[in-house]
Amino acid sequence: MFQTDKTMRSDRVPLNRVRIRDDFWSYYIGLVRDVVVPYQWEALNDRVENAEPSGAVRNFRIAAGLEQGDFYGMVFQDSDLAKWLEAVSYLLEADANPELEEIADGLIGIIAKAQQDDGYLNTYFTVKEPDKRWTNLTECHELYCAGHMIEAGVAYYRATGKRKLLDVVCKFADYIDTVFGSEPGQLPGYDGHQEIELALVKLYEVTDNERYLRLSKYFLDQRGQKPDFFEAELQKRGGKTHWPGAGKHVDLAYHQAHLPVREQETAIGHAVRLLYMLTGMADVAALTGDESLLAACRKLWDNIAGKQMYITGGVGSMPQGEAFSFDYDLPNDTVYAETCASIGLIFFAQRMLRLAPESKYADVMERALYNTVVGGMARDGKHFFYVNPLEVNPRACHGANHKYDHIKTVRQEWFGCACCPPNVARLLASLGEYIYTVQGDTVYTHLYIGGEAELQVGGSRVKLVQTADYPWDGLVRFTVHPQEGGEFALALRLPDWCPEASLSVCGETVPLDGRTVKDGYARVLRRWQEGDVVELRLAMPATRVYSHPLVRANAGKVALQRGPLVYCLEQADNGANLHGLVLPKTAELSARREEELLGGVVTIEAEAERQDEGAWAGGLYSPQAPSATRPATLKFIPYYAWANRGEGEMTVWVREQ
Amino acid sequence: MFQTDKTMRSDRVPLNRVRIRDDFWSYYIGLVRDVVVPYQWEALNDRVENAEPSGAVRNFRIAAGLEQGDFYGMVFQDSDLAKWLEAVSYLLEADANPELEEIADGLIGIIAKAQQDDGYLNTYFTVKEPDKRWTNLTECHELYCAGHMIEAGVAYYRATGKRKLLDVVCKFADYIDTVFGSEPGQLPGYDGHQEIELALVKLYEVTDNERYLRLSKYFLDQRGQKPDFFEAELQKRGGKTHWPGAGKHVDLAYHQAHLPVREQETAIGHAVRLLYMLTGMADVAALTGDESLLAACRKLWDNIAGKQMYITGGVGSMPQGEAFSFDYDLPNDTVYAETCASIGLIFFAQRMLRLAPESKYADVMERALYNTVVGGMARDGKHFFYVNPLEVNPRACHGANHKYDHIKTVRQEWFGCACCPPNVARLLASLGEYIYTVQGDTVYTHLYIGGEAELQVGGSRVKLVQTADYPWDGLVRFTVHPQEGGEFALALRLPDWCPEASLSVCGETVPLDGRTVKDGYARVLRRWQEGDVVELRLAMPATRVYSHPLVRANAGKVALQRGPLVYCLEQADNGANLHGLVLPKTAELSARREEELLGGVVTIEAEAERQDEGAWAGGLYSPQAPSATRPATLKFIPYYAWANRGEGEMTVWVREQ
Repeated sequence: MFQTDKTMRSDRVPLNRVRIRDDFWSYYIGLVRDVVVPYQWEALNDRVENAEPSGAVRNFRIAAGLEQGDFYGMVFQDSDLAKWLEAVSYLLEADANPELEEIADGLIGIIAKAQQDDGYLNTYFTVKEPDKRWTNLTECHELYCAGHMIEAGVAYYRATGKRKLLDVVCKFADYIDTVFGSEPGQLPGYDGHQEIELALVKLYEVTDNERYLRLSKYFLDQRGQKPDFFEAELQKRGGKTHWPGAGKHVDLAYHQAHLPVREQETAIGHAVRLLYMLTGMADVAALTGDESLLAACRKLWDNIAGKQMYITGGVGSMPQGEAFSFDYDLPNDTVYAETCASIGLIFFAQRMLRLAPESKYADVMERALYNTVVGGMARDGKHFFYVNPLEVNPRACHGANHKYDHIKTVRQEWFGCACCPPNVARLLASLGEYIYTVQGDTVYTHLYIGGEAELQVGGSRVKLVQTADYPWDGLVRFTVHPQEGGEFALALRLPDWCPEASLSVCGETVPLDGRTVKDGYARVLRRWQEGDVVELRLAMPATRVYSHPLVRANAGKVALQRGPLVYCLEQADNGANLHGLVLPKTAELSARREEELLGGVVTIEAEAERQDEGAWAGGLYSPQAPSATRPATLKFIPYYAWANRGEGEMTVWVREQ
Repeated sequence: MFQTDKTMRSDRVPLNRVRIRDDFWSYYIGLVRDVVVPYQWEALNDRVENAEPSGAVRNFRIAAGLEQGDFYGMVFQDSDLAKWLEAVSYLLEADANPELEEIADGLIGIIAKAQQDDGYLNTYFTVKEPDKRWTNLTECHELYCAGHMIEAGVAYYRATGKRKLLDVVCKFADYIDTVFGSEPGQLPGYDGHQEIELALVKLYEVTDNERYLRLSKYFLDQRGQKPDFFEAELQKRGGKTHWPGAGKHVDLAYHQAHLPVREQETAIGHAVRLLYMLTGMADVAALTGDESLLAACRKLWDNIAGKQMYITGGVGSMPQGEAFSFDYDLPNDTVYAETCASIGLIFFAQRMLRLAPESKYADVMERALYNTVVGGMARDGKHFFYVNPLEVNPRACHGANHKYDHIKTVRQEWFGCACCPPNVARLLASLGEYIYTVQGDTVYTHLYIGGEAELQVGGSRVKLVQTADYPWDGLVRFTVHPQEGGEFALALRLPDWCPEASLSVCGETVPLDGRTVKDGYARVLRRWQEGDVVELRLAMPATRVYSHPLVRANAGKVALQRGPLVYCLEQADNGANLHGLVLPKTAELSARREEELLGGVVTIEAEAERQDEGAWAGGLYSPQAPSATRPATLKFIPYYAWANRGEGEMTVWVREQ
C-alpha cells in the first residue's frame, strides 16, 4: 500500500561537511551571518527604528503567557520567525556560534511555552481567535506556518542535536495528523498555502516516522479533489473571509486546487505556492516511488522552465495573485518574479536533482540563484527586492502608471509582509546543500562554488576541494583527497550556457563525448589518488541570447549573458531612454573585469546606436522616420547588481538590428 | 467685473441647416436613428433580453410617484436617460419624427413629475437617500447628472421649440445656483465629475441668463482651491464613502482638483472628467474673454495632443482611474482610451475651433472621430467598445494575464455602466455641429463630410453643397449657392496627414501659399456666383507614421495611415503571432478598395517578413538568433473596422527593419 524507498534519492550532505570558501559567495554568506540574521533578529523584536514593527517575537511571548497584549501583524507572522530560526540553524550547522545559539535556545523556550497542551502552535489563532482554529485553511496559512516551524525544528536538531524544538514540532505534527484525514470527525483538507508538504518530509527524514510522510502525501492527494474543500469551508464560515475585499468564491487555480495535483500540466496561480507544492511532490515521489506524482513534477517543470520562466530565473508574470500567467507571456516591465518564487524554484530543482541528476534542473537552479536571488538582496544585506523586474523606467513608477505600482525602483528595507528577506537568508545559509549530490558511486557537482566537501560515496570517503573564480572565470579545479577507498566517479555539470568545455584529469585531457557525458554531466570514474586534480574549463564568452519567437515581449530584442550571469543596461552607465538604444547584430561584445565597480564585476561593452531625441523634428507622430542616431558605447552590468547606484532606468532586453 | 462677449466665438449652426449626405457617415447616422436609439430605449426600459437591466426609466417613474420600488443601478444612472434624450433631440432637430417625439414627450412628462418642488432632480437621492443631497459631490455625480439633463433640455428645446424640459432644467439650475456659492450657508464646492460646467454654458446660450454662465465659471474657479472641498466633505461625512473599498483620502488629481484649473499644465486623472472640464473652460473663456482660462486650455491641449494621445485619437493610458498617466507613456496593450474620452476630446476641439480656427484642433477631432469613435461601435449598432486598445492578444485576455482584465476582445452589448453607447449616439446624431464654423466673413470647413449646409456668413446667406468620397478619396468638391449677398470667404482645412494638396475655384488653380493658407486653412475670399465650384484635392497615399522617440511602446515600430484613417493588422488577414511580423523599410504600400470587406474599405498591402516559429530550434532561450523568416503579404485594414470578424489578434504598430 504505502511503500517507502529512500534509496530513490540522494542523501542530504550536512553543512559542516560542505564548507564554502568562494570569492563570490563567501561575501553573501558572510552578509547573512553578520548583517541579515542579526538585523532580522532586531526586526523580529521590533527594535528597528523607523521600520514597521514585526511583532513576531512578541506574539510568541503573548501566546506563551509571558506578556500581555494583542496579536500584531499578518496571520502568517509566525513564519518569519520560523524562517529566521531555520537560517540560524544552517549557520550553526556550518560553524559554531555560542552567542547565536543562546539566543536561539531562548527563543525556542518561548516557542515551546506558546505551544498548547494538545500540541497546537500558532500565535494568531491562540491569541486572537482561539475558537477559530482550522476554520479557514484557504486564507489563514495555519499549516503553512506549521510547515515553517517544522522546517526550523528539523534544521535546529540537525545543527545542534538539541531535540527541544524538534519535540515541539513532532507533537504539533502528531496533533495535525489527528485533525486531518478522511475518517469521520477529521478534516479532509489541506492548506491554502502549500509548505507543510515539504516540511513533513523533512520531519520524516530526521525521525524516520512514516506517519509524517503519509500525512504529507495525504495533503497532496486531497488538493483539487471534488467536492472542493475550500468552497465547503467558505460555506461553513457563512461566506466570511479573512482578507477584506476577498471575493465570495475561492480562486481555486490561485491555490493550485483547481485539479488534483497529478492532473496539473500547466503552471498557474500563485508562484510560490506552486513551487513549494512541487518541492513536496518531488520529495514524496522520491521517497515512495510514486510514478504519477513524479510524472506531474516533470510536466510542470518542463512547463515552467520551458515556457514560463524569465531569463533571470524569475517566475510569476503578473502581480495580480503574484502568479503565473500563461505560456510565453513574459512581460519584462509588469512582471512579478518574486524573490521567494525563484527560491521555490531552486528548492524544486534541488529535489529533482536529488532524485536523478539531469543538468537541466541545475541549469535553472544556477540561473535563479545568480540572477534573481542574489539580485534580490543589496550588497549591504539590509535592502531587498520582492519583485524583480527586467525592465524599469522610474518615471512610470510611483503611481505615474498604476500598472507599475508593485514595482520598486530600489531595494526596500524589511517589508510589512516580510517573506523574501528571511527566505534569502535561509537559502544562502544553506547554500552548501545545493552544490553536490551523491548517487550510487558518483559525486555530482551541480554548482561551481569554491570550498571543501567531505563526502561519502559508495564505499569511499573523500575530501573534495573545489577552487574557482566563478562566475567570472570558467576554470574550475577539483583536488581529490580520498580518505577511505577511492574508486568512485566525479560528475561535473556542463552548463547550458557554455558553448565549449574541456576536461582534464591530472593534466590528461578527457574527451567529452557520449562515453563521458550523460544527462549534461561529464563523468570520470577511476581509482583516485591523493592530490589528483581535475580541471574543467568552461568557455565563458559574452553571448547574445534570444527568446523563443512566441515570447511577445522580446520580439526583435536580445539579451546578453556571460557564464551564468544575465546582463542588463542601467541608466547610470548608459544615460536615459534605454528603449532608444539599438545593438547592431554585428557589434563585438567585449568583457572587462572592473574590480572597483559594484563589489567587482565583469562588464560587457559594445558599440551601438542611440536614437537621437534631439534630432526629432516631428510632434507626437510624424511621417518622417526617426533616422538620426548617434553612436553609443553600451555598458552592460550583471543583472544581479542593478539598482545599487540610486534610481534609474534598467533593461535586460535591448533592441537588435 | 463679469463681462460676456459672444462675438468671441462662432455661433452654433442648427442641425436642420447642416444635412449630412455622405457615403461613410450617413450609414452610421442611420444606425443611430434606426438601431442605436430604438435599442437604447428598450434597454433604458429594461426590455432587452439577457441584458443587465438599466432601471433608468423606472427610477424616474418611481421618483415621479408613478410606480413603487427601489432605485436600481449606478448613482449616475439618470445620465444614461438624459444622454439618450439629447441624442433624440438631435435626430429631431435634423428630421421630423413624430413617433419618436411622442416617446420623448412622454418621457419628459415623467421627468417633470420626478422633479421636486424646490427644483431638485435626481432619482438616486430622491428615491434612495433623500436626506443626503449634496453630501458627497466627490463620488455621487449629482451635478454631473444635472449637467446631462440640462444638455438634454437645451437640445430638446432647440429641436422642437418645446419648453417643458427646458423649464425643468432652468428651475433645477436656479435651485443649484442657490445651493452653491461662497455666501454663508452655501456650499463652496463643485462636482466630482465635471459636466455641469459645459451644460450651464449651453443653458446660458439658449436663455441668455448670465446667472448660468456665472455659475459655470464659479464651479471652474472653485476647483482645486484650498482648503480642499472634497476632503472637507469627506470629513463631514465621517469618512463614509459611496463606493465600497474607496480610500480614506480623496485622489484629488483623479478629479483634477489638485490645483486651480488655471494652474494645471499637464493632463492627469480621469480622462473624461478632464476633457469635459476643458470643454467648459473653453466655453467660459470664449464667452467672457477670460485670457488665463484660455491659456490653460491651450497648455492642456498641447500636452494632450502633443504628448499623451494615441495615434487613434484615444486618450487615457491606464485603466486604473480610466486616466492619463504621463508624457509619452502610451502603452498599446494596457491602454484605456475610452470611447467617451475621445468624444470629450472632440467636444474640446470643437470649442477651441469655435473660438479661433486652427487646424490642429480639427486634425485631432478628425483623428478621434474616424478611428476611436467609429471604432467604438460595431457595424450592427448594437455592440460597443468602452476601451479601445491598439494591440490585442486574445490569449492574454479573459483573465490569463490580469493586466488585460479591462480589455474586451470583441465589442460588447450595453454595459452595466453604460456611458459610451449613448455618448456615441449623441455625438453622431449631432455630427453636423462639427463640420463648419463661421467666423466673421469666413466659413471654415473642419471636416470633409458630404451634405448641404445653409449658413449665415457676415451679411451673406449661402447654401454650400459638399460632395466627397472621404475618407477613401481625397477629392472634395464644394458647390456654392449664394442666397443673399455673396462676398465671403471659404476656408478649407489642410489636414496634417496630407503631404500635398491642391485647390481650384471654378477650374482655376489657387496657389496654396502664405497668402491663402493661414492656421492650416486654405482661404478663398471672393464674390461667389451661383454654382461656383471649389475643388480640394488632398493626396491620400498610404503613409508610414512614426512616434516621438520618447514613446517607449513604439520604439522600432511603425504604423500605417491613409487619409484620416489609422490602419491595423488583424489575425483574420495575417494569421496569429502578429508580434513576429516585420515590415521592411523599403516595402511598397499598395492601397486597394475592397467593396465587399467590412462594409467597403480601402486595405493596404505590403510584402513583409514573418518570424518562422516552426524553424526555431532552441528552447525558451537560445544563443541562436531566430534568423529564419518567411515572406508574408501583410494586409492592413482601417483600425475602426477591427474586431468585426470574431476574436483575434490585432495591432496598430508593427516592427520595422
